[in-house]
This record gives sequence, structure tokens and C-alpha cells, in this order.
Amino acid sequence: MTTRLQVAPERIASAARRVMARCEELARVTATPGTIERVYLSPEHARVNRLAAEWMRELGMTTRQDAAGNQVGRLAPAGEPDAPALLMGSHLDTVPDAGRFDGIVGVLMALEVVRLIRRVDDEGVASSPLPFALEVIAFSDEEGTRFGKALLGSSAVAGQWDPSWWDLTDADGTTLREAFREFGLDPGRIGEAARRPESLVAYLEAHIEQGPELDRAGLPLAAVSSIASARRFQLVVEGEARHAGGTPYDMRRDALLGASEAALAVERICRAEHHIIGTVGQLEAFPGAVNVVPGEAHFSLDLRGEFDDTRDRTWTAISAELDAIMGRRGLRWRAREVHSAPAVFCAPLLQDVVRAGIGGEAPTLFSRAGHDAMAIGAIAGVGMLFLRNPDGISHHPDEAVSGADVAAGIRALAEAVLHVGSERR
Amino acid sequence: MTTRLQVAPERIASAARRVMARCEELARVTATPGTIERVYLSPEHARVNRLAAEWMRELGMTTRQDAAGNQVGRLAPAGEPDAPALLMGSHLDTVPDAGRFDGIVGVLMALEVVRLIRRVDDEGVASSPLPFALEVIAFSDEEGTRFGKALLGSSAVAGQWDPSWWDLTDADGTTLREAFREFGLDPGRIGEAARRPESLVAYLEAHIEQGPELDRAGLPLAAVSSIASARRFQLVVEGEARHAGGTPYDMRRDALLGASEAALAVERICRAEHHIIGTVGQLEAFPGAVNVVPGEAHFSLDLRGEFDDTRDRTWTAISAELDAIMGRRGLRWRAREVHSAPAVFCAPLLQDVVRAGIGGEAPTLFSRAGHDAMAIGAIAGVGMLFLRNPDGISHHPDEAVSGADVAAGIRALAEAVLHVGSERR
Repeated sequence: MTTRLQVAPERIASAARRVMARCEELARVTATPGTIERVYLSPEHARVNRLAAEWMRELGMTTRQDAAGNQVGRLAPAGEPDAPALLMGSHLDTVPDAGRFDGIVGVLMALEVVRLIRRVDDEGVASSPLPFALEVIAFSDEEGTRFGKALLGSSAVAGQWDPSWWDLTDADGTTLREAFREFGLDPGRIGEAARRPESLVAYLEAHIEQGPELDRAGLPLAAVSSIASARRFQLVVEGEARHAGGTPYDMRRDALLGASEAALAVERICRAEHHIIGTVGQLEAFPGAVNVVPGEAHFSLDLRGEFDDTRDRTWTAISAELDAIMGRRGLRWRAREVHSAPAVFCAPLLQDVVRAGIGGEAPTLFSRAGHDAMAIGAIAGVGMLFLRNPDGISHHPDEAVSGADVAAGIRALAEAVLHVGSERR
Repeated sequence: MTTRLQVAPERIASAARRVMARCEELARVTATPGTIERVYLSPEHARVNRLAAEWMRELGMTTRQDAAGNQVGRLAPAGEPDAPALLMGSHLDTVPDAGRFDGIVGVLMALEVVRLIRRVDDEGVASSPLPFALEVIAFSDEEGTRFGKALLGSSAVAGQWDPSWWDLTDADGTTLREAFREFGLDPGRIGEAARRPESLVAYLEAHIEQGPELDRAGLPLAAVSSIASARRFQLVVEGEARHAGGTPYDMRRDALLGASEAALAVERICRAEHHIIGTVGQLEAFPGAVNVVPGEAHFSLDLRGEFDDTRDRTWTAISAELDAIMGRRGLRWRAREVHSAPAVFCAPLLQDVVRAGIGGEAPTLFSRAGHDAMAIGAIAGVGMLFLRNPDGISHHPDEAVSGADVAAGIRALAEAVLHVGSERR
């Protein structure tokens, strides 16, 4: 494929500067001064939606906040107001103590792509020059920080809203249903956020890598082949709480030592597999007294892999090892699966257009982190572009991306959009 | 030594029945119905002190609640109101969800020993028949449940009260100073609880073993040689919190995996030593999110040994192993010592009288659990008698002791007191 974007380099550089400045501006919209924290259906969510809407209107887009609180801007081809749309975007919500770029940079880059390729007629009316509409979406909840369930915004767009979610509660006991009403949304209208597959041409998302591969390879951009398959478990180990002084080792059934062996077994088993990562992020001992042998331990397991079958085979191997460890120690264990998502594969054509957008020997990575594209994959082909993320630090104030890489990313994303346009003609 | 106690077996059996019934009666004095919980300076503490005082007066003892809330009864020899005292007792406070016997049985057995050996004159006035007074003490705080610092009651009696303790707080933020006032005690008079060494002949304490050794050996009673030396540490492991999906294994510095290896190393090193027990009772990972590699982990270490030097050598070995583990994983670690108590040795003479009281081939154990005798060791020779504790279960509702063993223990303790008397004549 060939280069289609005909713009002066200075326009791209200027677009990247605007993205970087807006990342700083959005970083100031936070629930916790000194750190960045914006959760679903919060006053900060409303403020960044208003800012995004303003920036969309500045490009001549029509705007709406959908029934799930996602902010959407649309630019149709002249005379075709109902044309299907190529959707671009990412999310504006954050984890606690977040960085400035995760999600955010993808929304802002999408706006610059619209700016670079839109057509403006003599009367100053903007339209899409392509045989489809251009839409930018700022998803309202990707991280799941507030209600513990990720991808709420994109799941609503994908028509995959589960009514059981209404009773999810935040740390203050507010239900998702109540939070909708407090934000000014009507839970009864959630179905209106769902998009019909035939209304979408494709979904393209730019995102920081949240990993070190591009940084290590010294490359700015990559196409994404697939988004990791993930399963999450909450595990309980049961032994017997006993007096720490009086109980000799041969009478102990120490649940914490069982859980410690389990955490190390997860590391050992996953390291031996290709493209599998297992993380024990939470672990706690009960009763949790300095002088009592722990009778119970709780821990979490987050398991991700490029393919569902290797992920599931790894879980089987971990389960067998837990049986062996707990058997030796006279402990019982059980696991409750709290999340399961199959791997989502980027559409081959969209991988091609992203690689074409990048140009040269464009690398291809798989994403171990989840993204809005996972949910949107249910209603549209998805393509993703990764930006180099120095040292792979994300979900952290030190999260970074360079202005030069953002400029390269804007160019690549715009090229990809134009390639989709040429495929559709 | 020979048997000195001349009483009908039925009187001992009756004494043991009273001890068992009173253990049940005290178990009903609890802050949490359905479980047993009595903490320092609580309404339950006041209620059990009143009951103990009533039972002391029933034996002709004079009673007082000392400046630290310990309940004391005294029976002097006729005509010698200021005679030094042989002190017997244990504690009436409990851990949460406690058993019925830890501490309690020792106070009630001491009362029965007074009942068995006191002299009552023609006018019904009771006195000690020995060349010293008999005192029974119910210590007010041995477990440290409320303020996190154990042995508060006996430390006051030993004159070892540390003024920094006044600022200790309970879970509600109440300081020890405020709790004293609410209980009706004057913090300024704490020094009055201290006993002069010359006012004490000895201290004898009966206690359940809180371990399985007697039960395994099929024996009811043992003399105690020493009380374990103990050190407690709070440890922190520092790594780097990172995104669980994006961070490959070779870039992880996972603090929880370091702490898990450390807990298993404590077990491995202590098992290889003789008479050393190490327990990790608390462990927690931070930030504690299912999808974040733990950047920090906190855990506790409780280390007990028969001798200070083996205990300290074990800590040195653990420290070296932690250096190696954390070095391999790119982690840092530090430890803060929060408690240190040297081993306390029971006086050889008092070990002899306790063994004589038990009779036959009396076994001798060392105590891995701490006891009030540790604090009283600073002002008097101490002797301890252990009662068989089925399966070694303590600090638990299933904690048990048999009426027959209590009867044997009352006889042994009374014999031991008479032996001390004969040594002093």
C-alpha cells in the first residue's frame, strides 16, 4: 500500500503538540489533587466529556453523550447523514494515581486524525471526504476502577450490557443504578447506547503499549494482532488457626505458607509457558494476628495469554500444582472465577491497514492488557495501533509517551483511515 | 521430698469441680455474646474482678484492686499482717474468640489451693498456716488484645511500666491513659501497683500448656523450665508496582513473591533448628489490586526459642537468606523489631517444688508461649505448672482441659506451696 496522506509535516507536529497539551489539561481534571483519578459517572467524568465535546464541535462534528455516558462526535460525508461510520477512540477514565496517557492519548489522536483528513467546503461546513462517516468516541469506563467491572462504556456500545451489573456497588455502597441517576442518565434507556453492526465500518484504536517491547526494540509504533485472553480468580486456602508459640511445625496447617507456595508456583509455571503471564496481586492472611498461625489465606490470580487454549492449559497445570501443595500441607483450597474474556483478534484487513499506516517493516505485537476494542470486537472489525511506552510503565504517574511518537502515531492512524477508505470505494 | 498435703481425695475432686464450674461462669462474661472476649479496662474486666474478689473474700482473704486493675486477695499468717507473700495466679483477660481456660484456670486453681491449706481458728478467722502470706492475683492484661502490648498487668506489678505506653491506642482510638480514667483508675498512681522484691517469697503459676506435648506423652502435668525467648518483627519488602498485563517476567520486581519466598524460608530455617519456632501471621500486598504487580508487601515475624542465643542466631540466618532472596529479585527489604523478651528461667528451687508437687517422674517442658511469670521474674523467683491441653488447641473456642487434670494440678500446686513453706522454716 502507498502513502495517501498529503499534509505538511508541520501540521502533524502541531497536531502532536496539541495532543500533548490536552493530555496535560485533562490531567488537571481529577478527584484527588496531586494525583490523577477520574472514575465512571463522577463529576470529573462529566467535566472531561464537556471538554471532549467542545473539541469535537471545533472540528465541525455533531456531538452527543450516549446512554452509558460515552461522549461521541460524528462527521458524515456531505449529503449522507446516515452513512455507516468508521469509529475511532479510546477511554478518558483512569485508575487511581494514574498516568496522563492510558486511553486519553487515543481519544485525542483520533480528533487530530479527523482534523487532518476532513473536508471543509467554501461555507466552512466540515464533512468526511471518505465514503463513510468519521466518528470519535471517548469511552466512559474502561478501567472498572469504581465498580470493579471493566469495559462498562464499550460493553454498552457493543449491546452487551448485563442487567446484573446494575447492583454493582462502589466503595461507598452506591449502586451502578443510583450512580446513573445521579449523573443524569436513565438506566432504563441503556439499550439506546448499543450500536448496530451495520452502522459501523470498523473500529480503530491507538493506545500506549503498557509494556516494554517497542521501547526495547527502539521502535515507535506497532500493529496489534490480538488482545490477550484473560481469566481472573479469587482463591481461598483453608488450614487451622493455632497459637504461634504452642504449635510445633508437625501440627501446623498454615494457610499462608500454602498460599505463598501457590504464588511461587504460578510464577514458575507461567514463566515456563510462552506468552503467558500470571499475577498474584492480592494476598491476605487470617486472622492476621502476629502470634496466630494463619488458618485462612485469600489471594487473587490474574492469568493472561495470547490464546485461550494455552491460557486454559496453564490454569489446569496451576490447579494440579495447588492440589499437590495443599495436599502435602493438609490444607484445602477453592477458586472462584470472577472474570473470563476470550482473546480478541484484530481483523486481518485492519492489521494490514495499520501496518501500512506505520509503513516500512511495521512490527506486530499482541496486547496483554485489555482495551475497549475487546468489547467493540463483538459488533465490528477492530484494529489497534500501539505507541512506544518508555520502560513499559503504565497505571503510574511516571507513564510516558513522546511527542515525536504521538506525531508518528497520528500520521499512521490517518494513513490507516485513508486505506480503509480506498478499500471501501 | 515427701507428700505433705493431708486432705481427703473428695475435697480435691470437689475443688476441681468448682474450678470447672467457675470457668463456665466466667465464660459468660463477654463483650461478644456467643464467643468469649474480655479485654483490659472493659466492663467485662470490672465484672470478673468483682467475681474474683467475692471468691477471695469467701476464703477469708482481704482484697484490693491494684493501680493497674489487677485483682488481689491476701491471707496473712496470724499476727503477721505484713509478712512477705507467696504469690499465685494468672490472668482473666482473653484474646478474641477465646477458650475458657487460658489464664483463667490458673487463677481459680490458686483459690482452691488457698482453700485446701489455710487455717481457720475457732472464731472462723482464716489465716496462712505457713511462715508467709498467701496471695492470689488475677492479672488484668496478659494477652495484649486491646492495646497490642502484652503483659500490661504483670509489668505494672513488676515495676516495669513504660510511660510511653500511655499513648497506645485501641481500635477505637482510645488511649491507654483515657481507658484508665474511664475504668476509674488514676494513671498518676500506676507506680503503686509495683511490688518490692522483698515483699515476695516466690511466684507460682498454673497454666494450660497451649501445646500438644503432654497430650502426646499421655501425662497430665509438667514443671516448666523456662519461658521462651521471643522477638517480633514487622518487615517491609519494596519492589515496583506495574501493570499486570504489560510487564513481562524479566522486568518485574514483585514484592509479594519476595515476601512469599521469605515466609517459606522462615519455615525452612526454623524447622532445621532445635526448639525454634518462626511464624508469619500477617502478610499483605500493596497496592492490592488484582491487575497490578505488587510493589510492596508487609509481613510479621514471630520468633521464639528456648535460648536467646539460638533465637538470635536464627534471626541472623533468616536475615542472610532474605538478603539473598531480595537480591535475586531486585527487591529491597527492612525489618523493624517491635518486641523483644529474653528467655525467663524458672528458679531451680521452684522447678524442684513443682516437680515434687507433681510427684513420680515429673516431666519438664519449656514454654513457647509467654506468661505473666515472664514479667514477675524481674522481682521474684518464678515456678510454673503446666496442665495437659488436648491436641494443644488454645486461643480457640475448642480449648480444653479435663476436670481430672485440674484435680491433679490443684494437688500438685498445693504440695508445691507446702514444700516452699518447709524450705522457709
